[in-house]
This record gives sequence, C-alpha cells and structure tokens, in this order.
Amino acid sequence: MRKFLYTLAAGVLATTAVYASDPVPAELRQSALEIFRPLPSTIPAVKDNPITAEKIALGKALFFDPRMSASGVFACNSCHNVGTGGDDNLETSIGHGWQKGPRNSPTVFNAVFNVAQFWDGRADDLKAQAKGPVQAGVEMANTPVQVVATLNSMPQYVEWFKAAFPGEDDPVTFDNFAKAIEAFEATLITPAPFDAYLNGDENALTLEAKQGLQLFMDKGCASCHGGINVGGEGYYPFGLVEKPGADVLPENDKGRFAVTNTADDSYVFRAAPLRNVALTAPYFHSGKVWDLKQAVAVMGTAQLGEELNDRDVDLIVAFLGSLTGKAPDIIYPILPAETAATPKPTANINN
Amino acid sequence: MRKFLYTLAAGVLATTAVYASDPVPAELRQSALEIFRPLPSTIPAVKDNPITAEKIALGKALFFDPRMSASGVFACNSCHNVGTGGDDNLETSIGHGWQKGPRNSPTVFNAVFNVAQFWDGRADDLKAQAKGPVQAGVEMANTPVQVVATLNSMPQYVEWFKAAFPGEDDPVTFDNFAKAIEAFEATLITPAPFDAYLNGDENALTLEAKQGLQLFMDKGCASCHGGINVGGEGYYPFGLVEKPGADVLPENDKGRFAVTNTADDSYVFRAAPLRNVALTAPYFHSGKVWDLKQAVAVMGTAQLGEELNDRDVDLIVAFLGSLTGKAPDIIYPILPAETAATPKPTANINN
Repeated sequence: MRKFLYTLAAGVLATTAVYASDPVPAELRQSALEIFRPLPSTIPAVKDNPITAEKIALGKALFFDPRMSASGVFACNSCHNVGTGGDDNLETSIGHGWQKGPRNSPTVFNAVFNVAQFWDGRADDLKAQAKGPVQAGVEMANTPVQVVATLNSMPQYVEWFKAAFPGEDDPVTFDNFAKAIEAFEATLITPAPFDAYLNGDENALTLEAKQGLQLFMDKGCASCHGGINVGGEGYYPFGLVEKPGADVLPENDKGRFAVTNTADDSYVFRAAPLRNVALTAPYFHSGKVWDLKQAVAVMGTAQLGEELNDRDVDLIVAFLGSLTGKAPDIIYPILPAETAATPKPTANINN
Repeated sequence: MRKFLYTLAAGVLATTAVYASDPVPAELRQSALEIFRPLPSTIPAVKDNPITAEKIALGKALFFDPRMSASGVFACNSCHNVGTGGDDNLETSIGHGWQKGPRNSPTVFNAVFNVAQFWDGRADDLKAQAKGPVQAGVEMANTPVQVVATLNSMPQYVEWFKAAFPGEDDPVTFDNFAKAIEAFEATLITPAPFDAYLNGDENALTLEAKQGLQLFMDKGCASCHGGINVGGEGYYPFGLVEKPGADVLPENDKGRFAVTNTADDSYVFRAAPLRNVALTAPYFHSGKVWDLKQAVAVMGTAQLGEELNDRDVDLIVAFLGSLTGKAPDIIYPILPAETAATPKPTANINN
C-alpha cells in the first residue's frame, strides 16, 4: 500500500511537472480528434475484396516474389521495403534495366487508408495500384499474361490461389493476383505514439510533440494533412502560395493533370500521408529533399506562404516523429519453387 | 488397446509393403552414414567468431539492408534470397548498373558447412565471403569506408554493434560487419528428409529416393558430393572425363586456377553442395542448365563418363529432392532509419 501511494504520487508529480511548463491547451487532444483519427485495431475491410487469412498469406508471397518481375530481380518489397519504412529511401526507384522511375516511391504502410493510390491518385485502391508497377517498363517490366503463366507454372501457387479464392473455376488471374496483394497490404498498419495519444494516453507524446501538433493545426498544415493518415485524403496544388524551385517541383511532371486533363489539376498532387514520415526520406514526389526539417520549411513557404522559424520547424518535426509506428512482424515467406514451365527471367530491355 | 494393435499392424504392413519391392540393401543407411552426415540440431560454431544472439540479430539486419550497396538497391538477400532456396534463380546475378555477374549465385543455406566459399573457394569462410559482393563493382559496388560511414551514421546500428561486440572500443568496423553476417548465416540451416533418414527414420525417404541414394553412391557421385552438405567439401575438375560444351563450361572461366595459379587447377571448382538443389536452378557456375535432370545427366557424362539412363536420372533426382529442407522462420528486420549523415545512394557506375 505504501508502494502504491508512492507510485501514485510520483505519477502525479511527473504529470504536474509536464503540465507546469506546458503551453498547449487542455483541449488539444479534443481538437486533434476533430481532424485526425487513430488507426483501428483490426485489419480494415476493402472494397470488393473480402480479406481472409489465405488471401493475406498468398499476397505476402506475391509481395516478396521477385519472379513477378521480368528480370527476376524486383519484388514489390524492393521499392516498398517493409524494413525501411515501407519505401526504398531513394530519390526515385531504380527498376528494370537500371532505369530510374519518375516519382519517389510512396510507403506501403497504412496505404490502405489513402483515398486513392500513387502521387496523382490514378489508382482507386491498392488492388488497382498493384497492377501498375508490375507492368511499368521502368519498374518490373512484366505483363499480366507472363505473371499468370509464371504463377500457373508453380503448383504451390495454384493451390494457394484456390485456397484464397475458393469456388472460382480459374482462380489464377491477374485480378486475383492484385486482390491478394491488396489483402496483404491491408495488414501493413503501424500504430504509433500519436494513436496512443488520440486514444487517450496524454503521456504518449512529449511536450515538444504536443506543441508541434498544436502548430501543425494552427498554421494550417492539417488542412491538407488530416484524417487517419495525416494526409492522403485529398488533392492540392504543390506551390499553392509560392512554387518551389524546379529541382523540387520539376516542370515536366504536372501531377494529377495527367489523370484528369483539366488545367486546374496542373501540379496538383495527393497530399502526402505523413505516417512514418521520419523513416521515408527523401521527400516530395521528386524525392529531392532529404532532410525532414527542410521539407517542413518548403511546405511552409510553398503551401502556407510563411517562413517557419527554426523552433516551429523543430516542434513540427517532433510531432511528425510521433507518427513513426510499429510495423507488424512479417515472417519472410518461403516461395514456391520454379518448374520447367516457369518463364525464364530476362534482363533485356523492351524484350 | 484394440486401436493400438490395429495401428501397429498397419504400421508393420506398410513397412512390409515397402520392403517387399525394395531392392535397396538393408544396410543402405549404414553405408550412407559412412559418406554423409546429418545437419546438427544446433547452430555450428565458426572460427574466430563466437556466435551470440546479439550478433545474429545484427547480422540479420545487415543481410537485409540494401543500404549496404552503393545504389541502395541490393542487399545480401537480393542474390541469396531466403525465400527462394537461398539464391536468386538467375543464370548469374544482376548487380550495380544492371551488370551481370560472372558466376551463378550459390545458396546461402547451410553454406557454413562448406570447406570454403565461392565456386572457386577463394574465401576461407563466410566472414571472408561477406566482404566480397559488397565491394564487387558488378554487385553492390560499395567500399569498406562507405559501409562503415553508413553504419556509423545510424545510432541504432552503432548500438547494435556495441551489443554484438561488447568491450571493443570501436566496434563498427568492416571486419565486424562481416562477422555479424557470418553469425546470421550460420543460423540458415535447413533440416531435410535426408537428415531424418540418416538419423534413423527409415520412412523419411520414399523408395525412389532410397534407390536414388543407392545409385548416387554406386555410380560415384558421392565421391565428390559427400559429407554434411552432399558436396562443398573439395575441389574437382569440371569435365573430369569429358568436358561439357562451352555454354556450360565457358572457356574464359578457369575456376580455381585464378586462385592458385597452378595449371592443375584449370577448370577446377568446388563440388557444388547439393542441399536444396531442387530449389536452386539454374545449375553449374555458368547457370546455363535449368533442368535438374539435365544437370544430373551432364554430371554423368562429364564426371563419370557414363550416359545415365532416364530411370537412373529420375531416381537420383528423387534422392536430391530429399535434400530440400525446412528453412528457419525469419522475421523481416526493421532497419535503422537514415540520418543527415548517412551517405546518399548513387546509381552511377564507377562513381
């Protein structure tokens, strides 16, 4: 009993100590809950694709299988590496034939919560997204026909597709390939200190992170970077107030304009989802900014028309650090062995 | 009791049924034990490198970390993929700048038991081997200085090196990098049905696998492919009796000659360790043969001077299938985040 009282007193003291110098309002968490949402504790449902354990297991194998690429070199995990924040830490990804991709690889973590996929939102969801890189000539350079032939050549994959898509006459399809990957990716959710805070744990954030959160809302960052992914919910012009330099915002990439073909969408991009942003340098679709502080400063001038001072930048970066979450444990999948019928890998370009 | 008797009777019947048509001698297993050894149940000790849990954990992170390559694209696991038999299923690996490596990537599984590493045995052990690909211009194209700078730039890595090499003043070294990788690789052991058989389980092998084992010993395959790894223990000329064609044995790769500079070592290679061989096509140092049956037939003519008939080849392949083991569960490591001090990746060749 004596020990309990002591612990309690220490707890109160600690709390008091924090609050004594805390300039954030008592209702900060309530204000935050009007803008942000914590991650759920369960795997989210996705459209037209019931998620089952069998589908997740198949999707995990496909996600890690380099034989889904023409060369046999690249898997989904190559550019969306679950060990490095769900992306590849490159300016833009290196793909088939050592070609450089056009835009920075976004993180796969929590991507299931984005309104749409890719920097320009050209894929409605993860199953549509999954079909892109595998066919892109500068990425995996494969074809749906070849992917399906590769999968059908390995009896273990055929069994796994049957288990994941029961009742289908011909389950090994490119659509189901994409659906299985979507199911696995839906499990890649990373609860962070910010979630604990939103869920009621006042001690989950440091004072600096709370002050940064306050600034993030007060300055207007949260106008675009809100919701469950602190971004990823809408489209906005990059350079709303002042266009950044051509290194950060290259002239020849007009963003969502290429999707909608409307002038208003020139240099419009999906607001980046900011979960795990401390792990996913370099930043922006161009991948030209390696320092998170610099990225925050660029956002200040480009989107808010305000030169944020060093202290404000530091506090916002402290808040962003609270978005770094715990990735799920993923046991590396043992992939099916090739057979004589498996298409041979080719390193040729435009084969 | 009645059920027990029935089960016992069924067991006896099954055993009898196998043996009734079994032409393999009763002492087959004993003969095999004079040539082969089962895998141990514990992680083997390695020279000058005490293996600890901390070293294994660090080595696992390093093994999966693409930032150990100059480009940030390739990790050890890229070419020694633990999901696909411990190799990359390519003729020869694709590396930095989309260059093609000179020889087929050997499996990392059970490599700790090989007498030496690489096809020509030029590295005495796995810690020596680990320093090779990371520096090879056509593979990871990095330098020891850059590797150490990269590691030192991430406080989490520095902590892990301190824990793995306690008491060392400056634990973050290229030598320790290699030792940690060796420690992790020493855990990559894959017990197979053949081990269960050697350990006394007569039912672990099919009749065909046993017949294949008998042939494998009778024909002389086991003269080079013996020991714990069914190979990997000594050096032999490829084309001992008859040189295979220049596609399989390219003239410009003289194997161990480049290591020893003695004429006798022309076209001499380390006998391939055959564990998991069913998973590691394509075959030979040239990676030119994709079909295991064809590889066995090539060995028959090249090494034994004998055209093996189809049935013999099938039986030997059945035996080789019993060498496919269970890879350990590996949880994908969460890697340290880069900092401002982390050297930037470069895709340039000869930078």
